Amino acid sequence: MSISFDYTNALGFMKDSEISHLKNFIYQAHSWLHEKNGAGSDFVGWVDWPILYDKDEFARVKKAAARIQNNSDALVVIGIGGSYLGARAAIESLSHSFHNQIGQKTQVYFAGQNISSTYLAHLLELLKDKDISINVISKSGTTTEPAIAFRILRNYLENKYGKQEARQRIFVTTDESKGALKKLADKEGYEAFVIPDNIGGRYSVLTSVGLLPIAAAGLDIDQIMLGAKDAYYKYNNPDVQTNDCYQYAAVRNILYSKGISNELLVTYEPSLRYLSEWWKQLFGESEGKDQKGLFPASVEFTTDLHSMGQFIQEGKRNLLETVLQVNSPKIELTIEEDPENIDGLNFLAGKTMDEVNKKAFEGTVLAHIDGGVPNLLVELDQINEYNFGELVYFFQKACGISAYILGVNPFDQPGVEAYKRNMFALLGKPGFESEKLELEKLLQK
Amino acid sequence: MSISFDYTNALGFMKDSEISHLKNFIYQAHSWLHEKNGAGSDFVGWVDWPILYDKDEFARVKKAAARIQNNSDALVVIGIGGSYLGARAAIESLSHSFHNQIGQKTQVYFAGQNISSTYLAHLLELLKDKDISINVISKSGTTTEPAIAFRILRNYLENKYGKQEARQRIFVTTDESKGALKKLADKEGYEAFVIPDNIGGRYSVLTSVGLLPIAAAGLDIDQIMLGAKDAYYKYNNPDVQTNDCYQYAAVRNILYSKGISNELLVTYEPSLRYLSEWWKQLFGESEGKDQKGLFPASVEFTTDLHSMGQFIQEGKRNLLETVLQVNSPKIELTIEEDPENIDGLNFLAGKTMDEVNKKAFEGTVLAHIDGGVPNLLVELDQINEYNFGELVYFFQKACGISAYILGVNPFDQPGVEAYKRNMFALLGKPGFESEKLELEKLLQK
Repeated sequence: MSISFDYTNALGFMKDSEISHLKNFIYQAHSWLHEKNGAGSDFVGWVDWPILYDKDEFARVKKAAARIQNNSDALVVIGIGGSYLGARAAIESLSHSFHNQIGQKTQVYFAGQNISSTYLAHLLELLKDKDISINVISKSGTTTEPAIAFRILRNYLENKYGKQEARQRIFVTTDESKGALKKLADKEGYEAFVIPDNIGGRYSVLTSVGLLPIAAAGLDIDQIMLGAKDAYYKYNNPDVQTNDCYQYAAVRNILYSKGISNELLVTYEPSLRYLSEWWKQLFGESEGKDQKGLFPASVEFTTDLHSMGQFIQEGKRNLLETVLQVNSPKIELTIEEDPENIDGLNFLAGKTMDEVNKKAFEGTVLAHIDGGVPNLLVELDQINEYNFGELVYFFQKACGISAYILGVNPFDQPGVEAYKRNMFALLGKPGFESEKLELEKLLQK
Repeated sequence: MSISFDYTNALGFMKDSEISHLKNFIYQAHSWLHEKNGAGSDFVGWVDWPILYDKDEFARVKKAAARIQNNSDALVVIGIGGSYLGARAAIESLSHSFHNQIGQKTQVYFAGQNISSTYLAHLLELLKDKDISINVISKSGTTTEPAIAFRILRNYLENKYGKQEARQRIFVTTDESKGALKKLADKEGYEAFVIPDNIGGRYSVLTSVGLLPIAAAGLDIDQIMLGAKDAYYKYNNPDVQTNDCYQYAAVRNILYSKGISNELLVTYEPSLRYLSEWWKQLFGESEGKDQKGLFPASVEFTTDLHSMGQFIQEGKRNLLETVLQVNSPKIELTIEEDPENIDGLNFLAGKTMDEVNKKAFEGTVLAHIDGGVPNLLVELDQINEYNFGELVYFFQKACGISAYILGVNPFDQPGVEAYKRNMFALLGKPGFESEKLELEKLLQK
């Protein structure tokens, strides 16, 4: 087993037969994904990607990563949303818990994922005495956050190394043929990698978007793609009765239809935090439209059992938990006997911390079911590159199916432009003059 | 102005007169807090704390912090929930963005806030060549997570320094007179600080629980207490029409009563992440009971506008946003002109990044109101120690009032024991034998 799904602990809240009722809808959704003829079908390139991806570009990614590891203390990855979360999820899940302070050949930092001048100034201060490279990731090259960060960091690099050497230290991941960043890369001779036209940001971690930063962090991207490829075959079966991935899609929709409004992704390892953030974008952006969708949130247990635990146990009953459980930790620690036993922990002596973590998990599931919270389980044997690849594919496919069952286009994001248009207008961007006056009037109210 | 509250952008979703209807209830809630005669009145010590706190202990905290700064490269803070989040919120909000890598005399790490052996083993590896001290924070001394971490770290310290010197490097924050940790501190002669009996964990950041780690991180705790004291007087007025803090409590209840189920705390600075986590515990644990309460979640903008933005703009309409906005950044960066302007950003040339961040905020508020999300605003002039103290008090008091209006006891947490009981039983803790069999049967189903 690498990954499995279990909804036994939701059966107090639904019946098995409810899944059967969805069987044909899921068959239809499966066919939309594979035949590429459903809503948003221009963006289902990720479905076959694990078997069809460009092997030459993949080899170039590995070479570029090796070059970065050889000449850079740090790589700065510039991107936001889907050009950011996947790589960060992989690096934090799979590396040392303090990977930028210990045990990593090339440190990895992120920029352009916010507009905080304090953050960027602090980052520049931290980088001062380090040799660095940059990987800027943007389909258009004009997304405000990464474009600002890249303008500043490119300038920094050219001042530090001169234009010539800076060119060797800037790697661009962008559109194959058009857009501002592609134009700049061609002009300057930056090595460029492709964001495929038929794969949207939140489905792009298995392309160069995610793979270059992940490889530069010293992780094994062959294994990631192997895990994804095996997942392609494993979840390539239209029958919801035997396809774990589709069962997850079905069950969350069934629970949603009963009035559940929030799905909490639960983890028991702090390194999985950004995997949860990636998951939140994947499901939130795919399903949160047309005034519907499960609101995706995440909690880190047992940490958050001491903050959000009370609400989950006894607060408003509109919650569903999906536990992403890793069976074996990377490192074990054993709890030792203490002759004085003032803390009363000797009943744990000889046990590993992870055994305690697992009992906390089991005890929590039972407590939360008792409290009225259906629990789903996605189980991994361990967190490694292979399983990361499989897990990404599992969630991506579950998400596509789930959004189709919900009756929305899983692959558009019409709502993300609204704040940008307002921001551009308020900033005086040419072409937004009339909106500017209107918005400023609203703000003065 | 240091902090202000504005609900103008919720007025499309409610009327001013709805606040008036709550006037007497709020007067009542205010009186419960100040007269200490409402539900949970044994735990309202935090209300007068900013004027009544123990000045001798406060002076001892500063001396202990100075000692730690003098002899330790790193302080390990062991605690969970309310013994963890407040200190971390302060340290991350007020320090350098990369404070453990640059610019801090004594680094601060956290342990005992989870049961991950991988995390703790990695932390031990990181600490190997550093001189360290420990601050263990636990009312009872038997809470599983910190007790395990302390057993391991105390052992580590005694092996590294010998029992004698280790005693000088262990600081205990616990009950004044009883409990396992107090007993151990007395026996070993550890310097001990007090968790007051009448202040619950989530209201305790302004006691030694938060103050010792915060001071050890080099932050000015005099200013924090001054801000809290000024807040005590500022929000000490029972009239909701003129008390910003009570208005926040009123408005979120009004919106909840209309069917809003999730409140998102929105920030535009990544350093505020743990302030949001602290806020989530405060409100979630105070209100999430008796099958009710607003579910507290948090988003970091503009980062999450590229992940959760779609859902917030157009997903299921059960959301309320409370923006915690900081007017002046710690550091400014100016966007420079680029003669080639391939990225099209020259319309921003000469502007600071923070101006762009502010326009993103304004544009987002307008877009989200348009999308049907009421917006509340808590505004700070800047993020510094004084304002942190005021903000903590503002939220604590708003939370007490809000939970009373909701009709729950703001100061208990009856639901957090459920998972612990199950965990103890499954771990074979003496006294839980019959539960063990029962639970194991349930798990085998």
